[in-house]
Amino acid sequence: MGAKTERLRELLGEIFDLNAASAVLGWDQQTYMPPGGAEARAQQLSTLSRLSHDKFVCDDFGAALQSAQSEVAKLPLENDDAALVRRTARDFDKQHRVPSEWVAEFSLETARAHPIWEKARAEADFPHFKPALEIIVRLKRDYAEFFRPYEHVYDPLIDDFEPGMPTRQVKAVFDILRPQQVELLRATKEHGRPVSDAPVRQAFDIEKQRQFGVAVIKELGYDFNRGRLDKAVHPFTTSFGIDDVRITTRYDPDFLNDALFSTIHECGHALYEQGITSSLDRTPLASGTSMAVHESQSRMWENFVGRSRPFWVAFYPRLQVLFPGLLGKVKLADFYRAINKVEPSLIRVDADEATYNLHIMLRFELEIELMSGTLAVQDLPEAWNARMRDYLGITPPDDAQGVLQDVHWSFGGFGYFPTYALGNLVAAQLWEQIAKDIPDLEAQIARAEFAGLLAWLRENIHRHGAKYYPVELLQRVTGQDLTPEPYLRYLRRKFGEVYDLR
Amino acid sequence: MGAKTERLRELLGEIFDLNAASAVLGWDQQTYMPPGGAEARAQQLSTLSRLSHDKFVCDDFGAALQSAQSEVAKLPLENDDAALVRRTARDFDKQHRVPSEWVAEFSLETARAHPIWEKARAEADFPHFKPALEIIVRLKRDYAEFFRPYEHVYDPLIDDFEPGMPTRQVKAVFDILRPQQVELLRATKEHGRPVSDAPVRQAFDIEKQRQFGVAVIKELGYDFNRGRLDKAVHPFTTSFGIDDVRITTRYDPDFLNDALFSTIHECGHALYEQGITSSLDRTPLASGTSMAVHESQSRMWENFVGRSRPFWVAFYPRLQVLFPGLLGKVKLADFYRAINKVEPSLIRVDADEATYNLHIMLRFELEIELMSGTLAVQDLPEAWNARMRDYLGITPPDDAQGVLQDVHWSFGGFGYFPTYALGNLVAAQLWEQIAKDIPDLEAQIARAEFAGLLAWLRENIHRHGAKYYPVELLQRVTGQDLTPEPYLRYLRRKFGEVYDLR
Repeated sequence: MGAKTERLRELLGEIFDLNAASAVLGWDQQTYMPPGGAEARAQQLSTLSRLSHDKFVCDDFGAALQSAQSEVAKLPLENDDAALVRRTARDFDKQHRVPSEWVAEFSLETARAHPIWEKARAEADFPHFKPALEIIVRLKRDYAEFFRPYEHVYDPLIDDFEPGMPTRQVKAVFDILRPQQVELLRATKEHGRPVSDAPVRQAFDIEKQRQFGVAVIKELGYDFNRGRLDKAVHPFTTSFGIDDVRITTRYDPDFLNDALFSTIHECGHALYEQGITSSLDRTPLASGTSMAVHESQSRMWENFVGRSRPFWVAFYPRLQVLFPGLLGKVKLADFYRAINKVEPSLIRVDADEATYNLHIMLRFELEIELMSGTLAVQDLPEAWNARMRDYLGITPPDDAQGVLQDVHWSFGGFGYFPTYALGNLVAAQLWEQIAKDIPDLEAQIARAEFAGLLAWLRENIHRHGAKYYPVELLQRVTGQDLTPEPYLRYLRRKFGEVYDLR
Repeated sequence: MGAKTERLRELLGEIFDLNAASAVLGWDQQTYMPPGGAEARAQQLSTLSRLSHDKFVCDDFGAALQSAQSEVAKLPLENDDAALVRRTARDFDKQHRVPSEWVAEFSLETARAHPIWEKARAEADFPHFKPALEIIVRLKRDYAEFFRPYEHVYDPLIDDFEPGMPTRQVKAVFDILRPQQVELLRATKEHGRPVSDAPVRQAFDIEKQRQFGVAVIKELGYDFNRGRLDKAVHPFTTSFGIDDVRITTRYDPDFLNDALFSTIHECGHALYEQGITSSLDRTPLASGTSMAVHESQSRMWENFVGRSRPFWVAFYPRLQVLFPGLLGKVKLADFYRAINKVEPSLIRVDADEATYNLHIMLRFELEIELMSGTLAVQDLPEAWNARMRDYLGITPPDDAQGVLQDVHWSFGGFGYFPTYALGNLVAAQLWEQIAKDIPDLEAQIARAEFAGLLAWLRENIHRHGAKYYPVELLQRVTGQDLTPEPYLRYLRRKFGEVYDLR
């Protein structure tokens, strides 16, 4: 490594440490912190994030970056340093375009908006949230202006979470996806053999749920020597470096799916972070390359593996041993159908595989209209409910179960939602490639053998961290751009079978 | 508050936040961190401590301090700002003498040393720890050199924990203490009525031990809304601000004293931190004024309260209800004698009140020899064992139960140990004053009423935080300098009674 890149790495390492410290404080905040600690914790996190930001945008850093750029100019992208400098330059440029006045106002307004949103949701009172949301929408539109010229006002927003993914492309993909998912949903409802989820809606002892979840993710490959599993209100994965990647879950005593699939989902995120090659540690490349690719990993393990029939061929007998009274007489086939029941529901995070993307597309369309100025904030609840009827055939009884359900808009996370659906598509695209490369994949899973699958993901996805942009990674691995077809094929095959369609 | 002191407070607040973040990372390191996280954690702590140090010693800070000094020059010490500026100036001067490179190296080496010490202790393998300890000893000797001229090479070290306490004074006090404690130990052994600790050496269910400990410290006044109790290898108290003060303990399934008195001990530390007045929060005065004063609080609650007869008049019936099989037939008098059994033992934290200080004096002497260069690290186990024989008449069977037992040297805490013994002395000095101010103190304790005692401590000690130096505080409250006599009176009375001496 050249001396100038070495210097850049040092500065990035310091910033990495500050961000890792913030992550530890955030983890503690959501797992063990006593209530009294909240106020001081907010102060500590604010200080750490300001110091980290200052170190990133300062002149010293800019100079070090420029020197490193000239040093790596002729290196191929496969070179860690070349990739590191490229990605750093991109982030530096993005941050530099945004005036500090905007940053200050945005952080002030989102900090104000969060408790307002919480109250509004608790009381199903959208008008209470409306003025705060109007300010945030205005600020995000101002934000887009810093990135002129753009093709679409939404482009700079989505780019924060999904580098290099234009709105046009997302729209094109969603336009194919939407009618076919709506059609599939209609088919299951009108022609499907009804599915009962009664087997998973029983009183499952929480400690046994935890034991089973731990046993499962150990077998999937989660390394408890370099991570741990705790409880949190909202499940999440967090990394303090590639050798300390922690996950959290939550337990519903009356519904098996909640903790189990949350745990596998977060395990999927964690396997990605734990699998990054050590040469990238303590740099900004020591993380997933984008939200969609991250979500492809969590959704793959959760759904393509965890909600598959082969998986339960291996694990259902063990689950029955743990819950003989509840599941002893339930057949594998019925259990498998129960965990895969399709039912239009109000809340995104509870949605099944067949309806999940519809929740996302609804949000994506509303965000675009808000940003384009064709939808006013005050008309948002009505627009939300209309789309819920169109796509899912149900109407929220109040705004708490409708437009107010997600935290994202209160922190200004416009552009984030689409990555959830894109993650599903990426997962399916990768899965078709994996099935080619590992012909007996399903047989391996049915024997609870995950080493082959994990090795494939390690080699093709995990180890690279954020070295390649998502589109590059997808091209390298599948030879293709993002396409909705594999996911649609997956959905049709799976739910055609679960619901005995045709 | 003047504008210049306000500015100083801002800068101190930022430093406080960085230190609080380090404390959270340190807490996590000793409670929940998976083994794989150790290396990155060392790096993160090193970065945070360097940034904190840099912010403290930088020219900006120096200028702000000077301005504030002129602003508060005419204010009395009772004024928060005046005290804050005075203490800050002292710390500034101390830190200014220490180069950032040393701070970074020290933090890195001590963070690395911790898991090495843990492994060495687990395997009773001193040679495994030796290289790490040699580095730390070297670094601490280098540290002392930054404070030349000194009266004694050990002075700068002890001053970090006990401001204004010269080695000479500690030696003088210990020279009075040692022969009288050795004599008391001899008397109990040769003339005392034998005490059996069989009642506390039974198989006590750990979960019940935990429940009892929690119930006790709640009644003592520990606020679980602003703290929590976790398990750790070495019990400790840590504060992230006065509203988040956490304690840890450990459980021995075959010995009741271990967790119980550790928990009360740490609770005593935490009551001090939780009792600091809120106007001092987010400043360096939001902590105990010294380790000895801190230890006076922990030892007072642990021993003067928790190992007293009146305390068990209140709590023994409850303990019997929890462990009817083990304690149902054990009389209060025998239980009281059991928890106060005097017996030379290998492990400091298990030592009874009559032998505890002997463990401390041994460490104090070894530290002085290590720092003076008259003892090499490799000869430490032998020197340790020789003094164990001289003072306590016993020899450790291995180094895990000898020289490796304490965590302190692994974090470079040379100068720390003597404060434990000094804490006992301060506790006794305060206790004589409290007994004067609250004539029915013992009766209150026997009714499990601790509000009066806690209010006295809040008023006279806790609320001040680090506003006054230890010697000032002791003078304010007792009208005296540090003296060993009250503690010797306390020991002779208590163990004269427990052992039916004379």
